[in-house]
Amino acid sequence: MKKHNFYAGPSILPQYTLDKTIEGIKDFAGTGLSILEISHRSKEFVACMNDTISLFKELLEIPSGYQVIFLGGGASLQFAMVPMNLMNKKAAYLNTGEWASKALKEAKLFGEAVEVASSKEKMFNYIPKNYTIPADAEYFHITTNNTIYGTELKKDLDVKIPLVADMSSDIFSRPIDVSKYSLIYGGAQKNLAPAGMAFVIIKEDILGKVTRPIPSMLDYRVHIKGESMFNTPPVFTVFAAQQTLTWLKNLGGIKAIQKKNIEKAKILYDEIDRNKLFVTTINDPEDRSLMNICFVMAPAYKDLEKPFADFARSKGMLGIEGHRLTGGFRASTYNALPKESVEALVSAMKEFESDN
Amino acid sequence: MKKHNFYAGPSILPQYTLDKTIEGIKDFAGTGLSILEISHRSKEFVACMNDTISLFKELLEIPSGYQVIFLGGGASLQFAMVPMNLMNKKAAYLNTGEWASKALKEAKLFGEAVEVASSKEKMFNYIPKNYTIPADAEYFHITTNNTIYGTELKKDLDVKIPLVADMSSDIFSRPIDVSKYSLIYGGAQKNLAPAGMAFVIIKEDILGKVTRPIPSMLDYRVHIKGESMFNTPPVFTVFAAQQTLTWLKNLGGIKAIQKKNIEKAKILYDEIDRNKLFVTTINDPEDRSLMNICFVMAPAYKDLEKPFADFARSKGMLGIEGHRLTGGFRASTYNALPKESVEALVSAMKEFESDN
Repeated sequence: MKKHNFYAGPSILPQYTLDKTIEGIKDFAGTGLSILEISHRSKEFVACMNDTISLFKELLEIPSGYQVIFLGGGASLQFAMVPMNLMNKKAAYLNTGEWASKALKEAKLFGEAVEVASSKEKMFNYIPKNYTIPADAEYFHITTNNTIYGTELKKDLDVKIPLVADMSSDIFSRPIDVSKYSLIYGGAQKNLAPAGMAFVIIKEDILGKVTRPIPSMLDYRVHIKGESMFNTPPVFTVFAAQQTLTWLKNLGGIKAIQKKNIEKAKILYDEIDRNKLFVTTINDPEDRSLMNICFVMAPAYKDLEKPFADFARSKGMLGIEGHRLTGGFRASTYNALPKESVEALVSAMKEFESDN
Repeated sequence: MKKHNFYAGPSILPQYTLDKTIEGIKDFAGTGLSILEISHRSKEFVACMNDTISLFKELLEIPSGYQVIFLGGGASLQFAMVPMNLMNKKAAYLNTGEWASKALKEAKLFGEAVEVASSKEKMFNYIPKNYTIPADAEYFHITTNNTIYGTELKKDLDVKIPLVADMSSDIFSRPIDVSKYSLIYGGAQKNLAPAGMAFVIIKEDILGKVTRPIPSMLDYRVHIKGESMFNTPPVFTVFAAQQTLTWLKNLGGIKAIQKKNIEKAKILYDEIDRNKLFVTTINDPEDRSLMNICFVMAPAYKDLEKPFADFARSKGMLGIEGHRLTGGFRASTYNALPKESVEALVSAMKEFESDN
């Protein structure tokens, strides 16, 4: 039976990426060696690294003055690296969910981390809109997509201090105006590659302003200078990212994928709104994530939660259970998820409704 | 033409690992999903993680009281994490090469890092033997194998303070008495898996003694508590490590591979000692690495360095050029390198000798 991969991350990758990684394991770039066992200093891998960075810059239309680096580990390490590299005294954080809260927690080790607004009191079911950012904060940190609660900040904010964004789960899903950000980071394991790597897009002129000593591996300047090869990079993950970005480019780039993402999300949100068994957890359509679509059983049908989970699984839907913090359901609809999988889920929802 | 992979790292992996990773990319553990796109919280991957930790403990005969964790990034991050987690005031370092020097440099950010001995004045061509470790140091740090210069500390030292070892490039190559160490760490990309992961074996009772605040991602206790899943682990790399360790177990374990490693190294060192064109860079046989065998042209034949490099390449030898810091040649003979590759290199050396 065909499986539909709705996992929130690690999550579905394009078949193109899977096929190309298999080819690369058999023989990387005609070297006669596997991508799993080739030196990162080989000219073939250096070319792969450079091409991956070029694809990043091209697809996201990154202006000059910015650097793209790839680091081992995931976005969670960036929760500490961002304040370590950018905060002397004070930074501001918008708390829109679990990951934003974790980023805020780590920042507190490095100075005064101000929570400018939080939607925690309502289970993070909206993006706060009216808040004041302290003018003396050294940066303002946002999490653009909240995988667990299903909200997304889809606009590029205009703020007066350097803007830092964790875009782990919506990078490459819609056009962004990079020039409005000073730093964008994220884990690779949603729209890019398998788990085990973080990307960081940095406006170079924000670096070098803190006074604390920074260990080499945690210093963005060291990795920029080393062109992401200060230490051995996650070679296979960079290669996989190159494949995914090539697939995205061939498909027409970010505007093309955004169109598909909007279409997929509409199909599912429309069904959630229509189907009497289910309700959305995010009321304001503006705040609804296009990447992680969360819903729960309507109050009158609470008992049907487990039966629907079982029913969906019997139809090949994997990973639609909500996060353990929220319960309910979550269908992740990342770039690589085909429309057919969303349609299959909607069919299952309709069938389950008519059976109940 | 058959290629012989002598790269120092990332380096050769068993064909078994390559084959199994391809199978895993096609379908992981019968899930119908790829290992590249499955949730780290899926029961199938949790089983893979647990099995990989069990194989570590079984193959290395790790006593109770120790934990094994896998972290994103490589060993270089451990250069900072070790002192951050273990040093309040003072630590001692043995400087046997480039990586040891880097570890020492990072430690200096966290307290008084004492270099107890160094072989730098002789291009790190021996392992210092007589030195005094300050009794008040909180740990003593060694690098057991020096990939760049080709020396190896093959004995488990008896020291009176906690012993910390970077075993990036010789872990799993010979039996070690883990009980003599308080912490052993390394990157995965030699005898274990593709690049992008570090392993850490920790005696739990050494933790919790420092007073500084530690960011969550840099705190060993957080990763122990999270069973290497505090954040998303490098799923594919853990899976690949499981394959390599399964291969090693099936082959007879560490004693069996040690026998092969000694045999391979002897074939090559004997030829270096015999062949008039080449000389070893490591005079004391006790200090010669069994993993990275370094040699240079004899003084009378310096002009033949590039011609031999070209000749070897024409015979399918890849990665035998020495590190840019040393020049000359380096044949890395990790666990997965077959004896046939060493024999092919020796044949090429003999043929080149008779041609010149």
